Amino acid sequence: MAPRIFTHNHPVNPEMRAARMGHRPLLLWFTGLSGSGKSTLAGHLELRFHQEGLHTFLLDGDNVRSGLNRDLGLSTADRNENIRRIGEVAGLFLDAGLITLCAFISPFRKEREALRTQFGDRFIEIHVTTPLEVCRQRDPKGLYAKSDREPLSCMTGVDAPYEPPQAPEIQLDTTHLSLDACTLLLFNQIAPVLKKGS
Amino acid sequence: MAPRIFTHNHPVNPEMRAARMGHRPLLLWFTGLSGSGKSTLAGHLELRFHQEGLHTFLLDGDNVRSGLNRDLGLSTADRNENIRRIGEVAGLFLDAGLITLCAFISPFRKEREALRTQFGDRFIEIHVTTPLEVCRQRDPKGLYAKSDREPLSCMTGVDAPYEPPQAPEIQLDTTHLSLDACTLLLFNQIAPVLKKGS
Repeated sequence: MAPRIFTHNHPVNPEMRAARMGHRPLLLWFTGLSGSGKSTLAGHLELRFHQEGLHTFLLDGDNVRSGLNRDLGLSTADRNENIRRIGEVAGLFLDAGLITLCAFISPFRKEREALRTQFGDRFIEIHVTTPLEVCRQRDPKGLYAKSDREPLSCMTGVDAPYEPPQAPEIQLDTTHLSLDACTLLLFNQIAPVLKKGS
Repeated sequence: MAPRIFTHNHPVNPEMRAARMGHRPLLLWFTGLSGSGKSTLAGHLELRFHQEGLHTFLLDGDNVRSGLNRDLGLSTADRNENIRRIGEVAGLFLDAGLITLCAFISPFRKEREALRTQFGDRFIEIHVTTPLEVCRQRDPKGLYAKSDREPLSCMTGVDAPYEPPQAPEIQLDTTHLSLDACTLLLFNQIAPVLKKGS
């Protein structure tokens, strides 16, 4: 038995919420290998926006994998459902008028392109291109070491695929730049887009 | 293979986002039968808050059943998963600092009490008590008529249970009151809570 969906025309619409926020809602989508710096960068970019008086939210493994998506594993089907749900939730946050930062490995090109189709020019794809060897050396979570000990670890870049974006809005390799420099670089590229007509 | 969850200490936390919004985040949870007026009331209450310059979001069947939860049906297990996911998403919206209005039949007491436990004094349960006979007469979606024609329709109040709240923060019967009167009544009860310490 499928649910019955009817559309209310609610008096407050996404445009009104965005106007109240005073800036465009944008979806800033960070993709890259584990250890590339996605989540750290997203957090510091959020702080930079926050300091500017803008309204933000950050979605990453911390608040999604432990809550909404705690029923999902690492199979390809579950990874796809993980990103599907995150995309839907990100869409709600855009409707709420927020600058929404998402930091997920999101290894599959097809699922990221689906987000681009869904959100149009509100979708900014940020490929954190830090190479696998550097991510391996950092290994902040010990996951690469673990994947070397355990075959079939589903570790992206080791025994699970990563399909790099072909035309991301922004590319950033964190190997030789400080966190502050990376954050400033991102801020300077994104800030002008926030002020354009919605 | 379960995903590996690690906690980042992100520089912007929920308290900072709420401070930027300038008011407490609250979860206003509307429960009641189909046709009771939940979604209409939630929409107009959102408008009232919006007019006051507050930051809001509304979750209901319109934007959840057609997106995030479009894989779910009307079985008890799916209804529970529907509300579980909505609760998780509502928690993210509270972390973003927004007044979050949710309008869902949410027929089971246990799932609503789980939300109360999760969100504490940020959870305001609003039971729209409009009686079944009145909802049946209104039948804005034609669902009661349909359920009379089709047995096993999973229609709450007809052939699926509704467990009323035992101690909701607010009860409201829309049978004899105008929409404006109902909205004002809700606004006057909730506005003082928004200003209390978070």
